[in-house]
Amino acid sequence: MLSLSRRWPPSLLTSALQRCPRKVNTQAVRAVQTKTSTKYGRNLFWGSVIAGSLGTGLFLFYGQDSLNASRSLSTVKPSPPSGPLYSQDDVAQHNSLQNGIWVTFEGHVYDITEFVGQHPGGDKILLAAGGAIEPFWAMYAVHQTDEVLKMLAEYRIGELKAEDKKTAVDTNDPYRNDPERHPSLVVRSKKPFNAETPLALLGDSLVTPTPLFYVRNHLPVPDVDPNSYRLEINLGNGTKPLTLSLDELRKKFKQHTLTVAIQCAGNRRDEMNGIKKVKGLTWAEGAIGNAQWTGVKLRDVLLAAGFKDSDIDDAKHVQFEGLDVDVSKAPYGASMSLGKAMDAKSDVLIAFAMNGEDIPKDHGYPVRIIVPGVVGARQVKWLSRVVIADEESRCHWQRNDYKGFSPSTDWDTVDFTSMPSIQDLPVQSAICEPANGAVLEAGTDEFTVKGYAWSGGGRGIVRVDVSPDGGKTWQIAELKKSEQPEGKAWGWTLWEATIPVENRESVDVCCKAIDSSYNNQPENVAPIWNLRGVLSTAWHRVKVTVPPDEE
Amino acid sequence: MLSLSRRWPPSLLTSALQRCPRKVNTQAVRAVQTKTSTKYGRNLFWGSVIAGSLGTGLFLFYGQDSLNASRSLSTVKPSPPSGPLYSQDDVAQHNSLQNGIWVTFEGHVYDITEFVGQHPGGDKILLAAGGAIEPFWAMYAVHQTDEVLKMLAEYRIGELKAEDKKTAVDTNDPYRNDPERHPSLVVRSKKPFNAETPLALLGDSLVTPTPLFYVRNHLPVPDVDPNSYRLEINLGNGTKPLTLSLDELRKKFKQHTLTVAIQCAGNRRDEMNGIKKVKGLTWAEGAIGNAQWTGVKLRDVLLAAGFKDSDIDDAKHVQFEGLDVDVSKAPYGASMSLGKAMDAKSDVLIAFAMNGEDIPKDHGYPVRIIVPGVVGARQVKWLSRVVIADEESRCHWQRNDYKGFSPSTDWDTVDFTSMPSIQDLPVQSAICEPANGAVLEAGTDEFTVKGYAWSGGGRGIVRVDVSPDGGKTWQIAELKKSEQPEGKAWGWTLWEATIPVENRESVDVCCKAIDSSYNNQPENVAPIWNLRGVLSTAWHRVKVTVPPDEE
Repeated sequence: MLSLSRRWPPSLLTSALQRCPRKVNTQAVRAVQTKTSTKYGRNLFWGSVIAGSLGTGLFLFYGQDSLNASRSLSTVKPSPPSGPLYSQDDVAQHNSLQNGIWVTFEGHVYDITEFVGQHPGGDKILLAAGGAIEPFWAMYAVHQTDEVLKMLAEYRIGELKAEDKKTAVDTNDPYRNDPERHPSLVVRSKKPFNAETPLALLGDSLVTPTPLFYVRNHLPVPDVDPNSYRLEINLGNGTKPLTLSLDELRKKFKQHTLTVAIQCAGNRRDEMNGIKKVKGLTWAEGAIGNAQWTGVKLRDVLLAAGFKDSDIDDAKHVQFEGLDVDVSKAPYGASMSLGKAMDAKSDVLIAFAMNGEDIPKDHGYPVRIIVPGVVGARQVKWLSRVVIADEESRCHWQRNDYKGFSPSTDWDTVDFTSMPSIQDLPVQSAICEPANGAVLEAGTDEFTVKGYAWSGGGRGIVRVDVSPDGGKTWQIAELKKSEQPEGKAWGWTLWEATIPVENRESVDVCCKAIDSSYNNQPENVAPIWNLRGVLSTAWHRVKVTVPPDEE
Repeated sequence: MLSLSRRWPPSLLTSALQRCPRKVNTQAVRAVQTKTSTKYGRNLFWGSVIAGSLGTGLFLFYGQDSLNASRSLSTVKPSPPSGPLYSQDDVAQHNSLQNGIWVTFEGHVYDITEFVGQHPGGDKILLAAGGAIEPFWAMYAVHQTDEVLKMLAEYRIGELKAEDKKTAVDTNDPYRNDPERHPSLVVRSKKPFNAETPLALLGDSLVTPTPLFYVRNHLPVPDVDPNSYRLEINLGNGTKPLTLSLDELRKKFKQHTLTVAIQCAGNRRDEMNGIKKVKGLTWAEGAIGNAQWTGVKLRDVLLAAGFKDSDIDDAKHVQFEGLDVDVSKAPYGASMSLGKAMDAKSDVLIAFAMNGEDIPKDHGYPVRIIVPGVVGARQVKWLSRVVIADEESRCHWQRNDYKGFSPSTDWDTVDFTSMPSIQDLPVQSAICEPANGAVLEAGTDEFTVKGYAWSGGGRGIVRVDVSPDGGKTWQIAELKKSEQPEGKAWGWTLWEATIPVENRESVDVCCKAIDSSYNNQPENVAPIWNLRGVLSTAWHRVKVTVPPDEE
C-alpha cells in the first residue's frame, strides 16, 4: 500500500478542501430543514472495501449489502464510554493534517488522521474533520455495516463532554425529498435511490415507459421550484453568464425531440461479480432504457450566450453541474468535449420533457442534459450550470470513477489518470425473455427470445446473432427500431428470434449484437472484468429448460 | 440453388449490360497497345468456388491457389477438335439470353447460357457474350485452374472455323503497366498485384515506409500521365462539373498532411480459413499500414465546385471512381455518405503525396482519396471522378462485397442488400514479433512482444492487454502513437510488452486492444467467421517455444 504522504501531499489535501465546498446555485433548492434524528446513526458502513482502496467512489457501493445493513448490524454492541473527555471545541481544533483529524460519533471521539489516506471515498472525509460524522453517514448510507464500526473503534481516543453530545448527533434525512416510485422497479439501493426496470418488461416497448425507466441517483433528489429555477451558461472567458428561466429555455430556442437510449456504465455488473467481486451497485440487465427527450440544443444555447464557432477548441470541455449536492454542497458534475458539444451536427440537448411530459423528479426535473450515445453518468440531471473550461469536470465521478481498466488492474495498482473517462459506450445486447432459468411448457417445439441491443456514438445495430447452443451455431434475429439518420442511431434496437428446441432438455441461448462499425461484443466476462465492474458487455446468456413431453 | 430466372431477371441482365461500359475518363490513360499473346490462354480458373456462389467478386479469389496455378494445370490435356464448325459471326449472334450466350476459347465454341446465372464473378461474364473469353481471363487471371477448364468443357458445342481462330486468341497483358515492387513484400497474388508487409518489419516503424506498404489492387495499375490528368468533380445536380489539373489541385486549395492507417477488410483473413474455408485473398496480418498523406480536403473542393452546406442531405452519397478499369472499361469505384464528406470537421483528403513524396503507382499515382478511419476499399486510388449521387456507388465492391455477415450465412443464403457496406472498421490489433512458432534462445527469462493496434472512426486506442497464457492473465502494453486530436485518431498505435517466461517451455501470447469507445476485440474467430473472411479481428495469438537452459 502506498504511504499517506505519497498519495496525498498536504498541499493537495488543502486545495482539495478549498475546492470542495464549491459555490452552488442554491437559489432553486428549497431550504433544508434540520431535524434531530439518530435514524442513520447506528447504520454505518465503510465496508470491507477499505483495505487497499484508493479514494474511489465509496458512496457508490450500495447493493444487497446496504439493503441488508440493518440486519447485519444487530450483532454490534454499543461501546461503553472510556478514555479522556473532550469538548466540541477541542475536537474542532483538530481539522487538519498538521493538527490531526478528529471526528465524533455517538458521543465518542476518534483521531482518524492515520486513516484518511485510506478512505475509499476520497477527500470527502476531510470535510468532517473537527466535527460529527453522523451527517456524512446520513448522506452516504453505504457506511452501514459492522466492518466500519469495528474499524472506527480502533481510532477511538476518548469521549465527548456530556453537554456537547446533543449537537453532535443532530442530523437530518437528506433523502426526504425523494419522490414516490413505481412498485415494479427492482430496487438496488434506497438512499440514494437506484433501481432497474424488470427485465421481462424491458423488451416489450420500443420506448420505455417513464415510471419504469431505470433510476440512477448518486445523491438525494433535489426539490426544485420551477418558478425560481435558473440555468446558468458560463463561457468561462470572463463574460457575464447567461441566465435562463425554464420558460425562456422553452420559448427562446427551437425545440427538438430525439429518441435516445441511456445506459448506466454498470449495467450487467452482476455478471462480473461471478468472476471476482467488483465494487459497485449490483445491476442486472435493466440499467438501460430508451425514451423520447424534448429540449433545445446545447449548441444553440451556447451560441445565444455569445460563444462563437471560431472559438471551438478541441482541447476544451463543457462541464455540467447538477442541483444534487453532497454534504459539502458540492454538486454532481460531468463534462464532455467542447468540440463534440459545439459540432454543427451535435444532438446534445438541454431537455425538459421525457416521453412527452415534464421530466419527472428522478430523471432530473425540471432540466437535464441528454448527450446521445454516451454513458448515463454524463447526462447530468437537475442541471444548474453549463461551464466551458480548460479541463474536465473535477467531479469525482468524472475523474476517479467510470473508467475501464484491465482485468490485471486492482485497487493497489489502479491509476485513474491512466484511462479516459467513459463517454461513447461499446456495443451491447441482452436477452429480456425468457428469463435465465425459465422452465418452458413440456414438449415446447420452439420459443421466442426477445431482447435489446444498442451501441454508443450513434452507431446503429446492423445485426443481432442469437445462438441456441451457447455460441456454436447462430441465427439472425429480426430487428425493430426507430428510423434515425446516418451516424445518429441514438435509440436502441429491440430484436426477437424463434429458437427451435430440437428435443433438447436444456437450451443455452446467447446473443451478440454487431454495430455499424462492425464491432462485436466480447464472448466472455473474464477478459473484460474490471475492478469497478463497468462496461459489462459480454454475450448475454440464459439457460432455458424444456421438460420432455410426457406423452 | 436458386433458379436462373429468380436470380437474374432478363430486365436486370439487360440493364446491367447497359450500365457496365460506363463512360470513363480515359484522357489520361495511355492507349493500350494490343499484343498477340497466349500467355494467359492456358492458365484458366473459375475455381472450386463456383458451386453455390451468387455473383460475388470472383476476381478477388487469388491466393496460394492462383500462384500455384501453372503447376496444377500441367495435368490438363489440350482438347481435340470436335463437333460442328461455326464462324465468328455465328458466335457473335449469340450474345443475349434470348439468343443464347456463346463464347470461344482456344478455337472451341461454348454455349454457356445455362451457366451465366451461376458465375461467381457476376454479370461481367455477359460482356464476353458472342466473342473470345481470353481477354477476360487475361484480366481475371484467377480463372487459371483445372476446375474451370473442366467445367467449361461441359458447355462445348463445336469448333471455330479455321480462318476465325487467329482473332479469337488475340489478347494482351493488361498488367504490363504495373510497376516494379520491393522484393520484401509478401506477394498474395501477382495479377492483380496484392502483397503485404512482412510482419516482422511492420511493428518497427510508426510510419510504414512507402515501398513496404501493403498493396491491394483489384485491377491492373493504370499508367497515368500527370500532365494530362484531370479530376472531375460532379455535383450531380446538372451543373457543369469542375475539372482540376494536378497543378490546380495542389495550388488552389489549402494542403493538409494527416497520419492515417489504412487496413484491408480482409486483413488476417487466413485465420478464418482455419475455421472453414472463406473466399478471398489469403492475407495474414500485414494488410495494414500507417502513412502520412498530403492533399486537399474533399470538402474544400466540393465547396469550390459550387456545393453549398445548405444542400447537405444525409441520405446522399459521394461516389469515387478510379482510373483502374476492367475489360468493359468500368472503373473501380466506392462511395461514402455525403454528410460525412461535407462535415465541417471532415478530414477526407484528395491526396497526392504519401510520406512526403508523390504517391507511387501502386498506391494511386497521381491522386487518391483518403477517408480516415474507413476500410481500405473505399479509399479509391487513381481517382478520376467525384460524383454526388442519390445512391451508393454501383460498383461490385461497394454493393456485393466488403460486407460482414453472420457465421450462419452461406453462399446459398447471402443477401448482399441485407447488410451495410463496411465503412468504419472495428478495433483491431496483432502481434508483429515474435512470429508464431518462434523458438527463443534456451533459458530466455523474458522477451519483448511488439505489435500494432488501430480502430476505425477516429477512435483512438486507449489500452492494449497482452497475455502470456492464452488469455487467462493479462498485462498492459506500453503504447506509442502520434498526437492526434480528440475523435480523430486516424493513425495506428504501436505497442510493446515484456513477457516473463517463468520456466514455461511454451508461451501462448495473445493481445487485445480497447478503443476510446471501450470496444473490445472478439476472443475467438469462429463466432465472427463470415463467408468473405472480412473483419477478422479476434485476439491475435502466437505460440513461442523457449527450450530449457541446458545448464
